[in-house]
Amino acid sequence: MLELTICLDPAGEKPLYQQLYDSLVEQIRSGALRTEDKLPGKRSLASQLAVAVNTVDTAYQMLVAEGYLEARERSGFYVLEYTGVLPRTAEGAGEMRPPEEPEVPVRFDLSTGAVDTALFPFRTWGRIQKELLYNGEALLRHGHRQGDRELRGELAAYLRAYRGVVCDPEQIVVGAGVEYLLGLLAQLLRGRTAAVENPGYDRPRTILENNGIPCRCVDIDGGGLDPAGLEKSGADLCYVTPSHHFPTGVTMPAGRRAELLRWAAAGEGRYILEDDYDAEFRFDVRPLPSLQGMAGPDGRVVYLCTFSKSLAPSIRIACMVLPWELLAAYRRAFGSYSNTVSRFEQQTLRLFLEGGYFTRHLARMRSAYKGRMEALAASLEAAFPQVRLSGRHTGLHLLVTLPDGPGEERMIASALAEGVRIKGLSAYYMERGERCEANSVILGYASLQDGEIPALIEALRRAWPEG
Amino acid sequence: MLELTICLDPAGEKPLYQQLYDSLVEQIRSGALRTEDKLPGKRSLASQLAVAVNTVDTAYQMLVAEGYLEARERSGFYVLEYTGVLPRTAEGAGEMRPPEEPEVPVRFDLSTGAVDTALFPFRTWGRIQKELLYNGEALLRHGHRQGDRELRGELAAYLRAYRGVVCDPEQIVVGAGVEYLLGLLAQLLRGRTAAVENPGYDRPRTILENNGIPCRCVDIDGGGLDPAGLEKSGADLCYVTPSHHFPTGVTMPAGRRAELLRWAAAGEGRYILEDDYDAEFRFDVRPLPSLQGMAGPDGRVVYLCTFSKSLAPSIRIACMVLPWELLAAYRRAFGSYSNTVSRFEQQTLRLFLEGGYFTRHLARMRSAYKGRMEALAASLEAAFPQVRLSGRHTGLHLLVTLPDGPGEERMIASALAEGVRIKGLSAYYMERGERCEANSVILGYASLQDGEIPALIEALRRAWPEG
Repeated sequence: MLELTICLDPAGEKPLYQQLYDSLVEQIRSGALRTEDKLPGKRSLASQLAVAVNTVDTAYQMLVAEGYLEARERSGFYVLEYTGVLPRTAEGAGEMRPPEEPEVPVRFDLSTGAVDTALFPFRTWGRIQKELLYNGEALLRHGHRQGDRELRGELAAYLRAYRGVVCDPEQIVVGAGVEYLLGLLAQLLRGRTAAVENPGYDRPRTILENNGIPCRCVDIDGGGLDPAGLEKSGADLCYVTPSHHFPTGVTMPAGRRAELLRWAAAGEGRYILEDDYDAEFRFDVRPLPSLQGMAGPDGRVVYLCTFSKSLAPSIRIACMVLPWELLAAYRRAFGSYSNTVSRFEQQTLRLFLEGGYFTRHLARMRSAYKGRMEALAASLEAAFPQVRLSGRHTGLHLLVTLPDGPGEERMIASALAEGVRIKGLSAYYMERGERCEANSVILGYASLQDGEIPALIEALRRAWPEG
Repeated sequence: MLELTICLDPAGEKPLYQQLYDSLVEQIRSGALRTEDKLPGKRSLASQLAVAVNTVDTAYQMLVAEGYLEARERSGFYVLEYTGVLPRTAEGAGEMRPPEEPEVPVRFDLSTGAVDTALFPFRTWGRIQKELLYNGEALLRHGHRQGDRELRGELAAYLRAYRGVVCDPEQIVVGAGVEYLLGLLAQLLRGRTAAVENPGYDRPRTILENNGIPCRCVDIDGGGLDPAGLEKSGADLCYVTPSHHFPTGVTMPAGRRAELLRWAAAGEGRYILEDDYDAEFRFDVRPLPSLQGMAGPDGRVVYLCTFSKSLAPSIRIACMVLPWELLAAYRRAFGSYSNTVSRFEQQTLRLFLEGGYFTRHLARMRSAYKGRMEALAASLEAAFPQVRLSGRHTGLHLLVTLPDGPGEERMIASALAEGVRIKGLSAYYMERGERCEANSVILGYASLQDGEIPALIEALRRAWPEG
């Protein structure tokens, strides 16, 4: 029977369960408790320490939740192999914090997802919000559960004109982010299996799986998601980013889009979930019309898009366009749900669209980002003769490959040492990472200021001398 | 050499490259251009159409990008096999539209869920929002995924002081409505069964079931949810509204609360989901502290509350307090989700709480609603000698019973005929409706103006002469 040396301070600041938890974590980390050691039963430890059984139980449950211990049916609690991956902070509450990236002095944060907040149209947005507040009493009441009708009317017009989306405003559902809307979709489509892009953005997969939809990875190639792989996957749902695949920047050609639509039409209950993420930022020619538009309003495509990229990450407005049959199911399942977006922000966006401010704002952003991308690309090519750049024409990041570089891991590490935070391509592979193009990293340039480019390039040259 | 019949309109709205692109797509889709057809060289077509070479080049590049054409080295542009599904339009899709609820002319809407928007503290709320907009650039970036830390700090202090909730701000998750938060909880607790109150508010059950949690109805009596029935139900989760049961207005006594906590502690993985809905509106004594406070920060209670009732239904801010072990699970499952509440509204609420405006606002509302409730109750008792009223002390509605009345259904119908929309008690029974007290309807008085009471009473007297 294991002997534990634990002393708790009933007068201490931290609750007893927290003190017990801390001391057990300490002993596991220090090796005083070893893998497969069996801990004392809750009651015996409780009486040994003169604390409530509940105190011991809480500490044990926390350790189980964090993977320090394993609870074995009718046997007890055992120490699991400790791999040192869990974070540790001074605060008791911090114990359960998920791993945060280490704090390094970062001069250039080129991780994706950032935007240039200086481009946000504060004056107009603010003016509209103030006007709404002056006579906003009506906006205090519940609005339509799918989102205010006037907003959905504006969204339908915008999506038709700029994204070739063919729909009636009734088919639009407004929600607080694509993640939320995707979660509702998953509930409607439960029992099915989803194909996701590999490499790809991992959150959609997380959301689908959290909502009980198993996911299969389908490799993408030069044309995006491969229909043969989709067919082989046996999935009924296909989450896809045809305008601009993340992170490779590939745009899916029309022929392949047609194949996807035929796949969807060929099987009972099949749907394509088209995430039109980033389509606003196409720099060469007009972006391709959406898959939804090719399929039509009663096709088997759900169209999803967010305004968090084009406005600001902290403004949570997204929308989805449902085929009529799914809309009926949506209303049966969620007809009683309140909308998740504040009506003041719904109406601000509506007036922002109505006044043509949004399209002007997009045009401004496109040219700013395009200039930034071109300057960055030119500097990279000048500094690294061997460099290969892809994803120039869309989105807010470049895929940078150094054929003779030091390898992805060292590229990231030495860039970070120079104060440049970037992510590697392999981070986006959920399966078969060995197919990943070597020596490739992703440079998100959205928040990079034009004047900073020379200094950034200098830092990268120091980081990647072999390049 | 292929002959193309293309006519472009230099005065047209669309740019020339777009017109050329459209017409070539049309000919490829219609079959006028067939697979392997070679297109005219850019220069020759440009001169044939009297447009710039760049115009033709752009159109060709778009067609290549979309997979309609292939550019062959030192040879030219060739039509690729087109197997597309032609887009369909919204025409005729209308029949598939789900029916919308019919509108009835209503003078008094006494359905619950309404609030008196005149009580909203517009001046203060608006002023705070404007101040935030003036220097809000930082608020454009992603905030903490559980909600801004300063807001969670204010919430923890408020909930401790007014609801006896014992928690660290780290345990708080802010979200766009209790419905959204309950959905996340259900995903964390999948595999369990939930007990819900019968009669009760039906949305929680809908949300739990939509998220794959089967629900069992447990009858409520004079003390609220019956622990014996809960035990019998075999559920692992218990959704309960102890401060103010909806719709009966019953408040759960302390003894029974302790029984619920014992039930939760007695079984592996059991949790109480405490919806503190409406607790702000208690008119007699200070409301009982929350179950969460009785159980403590590591107890088996998840505390949920919304600000949509106390501020405005259109402002979607709610929060939940998770026990530490669930918090760890929450972060594993949802650590990558963005928060669903706009940071401008999070910070507005934070400053509203910080400045003490919220508690003053609650006090004002309480006295306004209390006066309204008392005036309504007095008028009802004067007009209907037999009437029995319950739920006087909490919430924003009364349960009205007419022992010799015409029966619930006719009470509702004849009230509606007089322009008064109300709901019957039986509407809230999910099972065993026959146990329902007959002749009972629910009068939500939140949006009723004091001056309207006499006219309302007149209408009800006409509707219910037998009363």
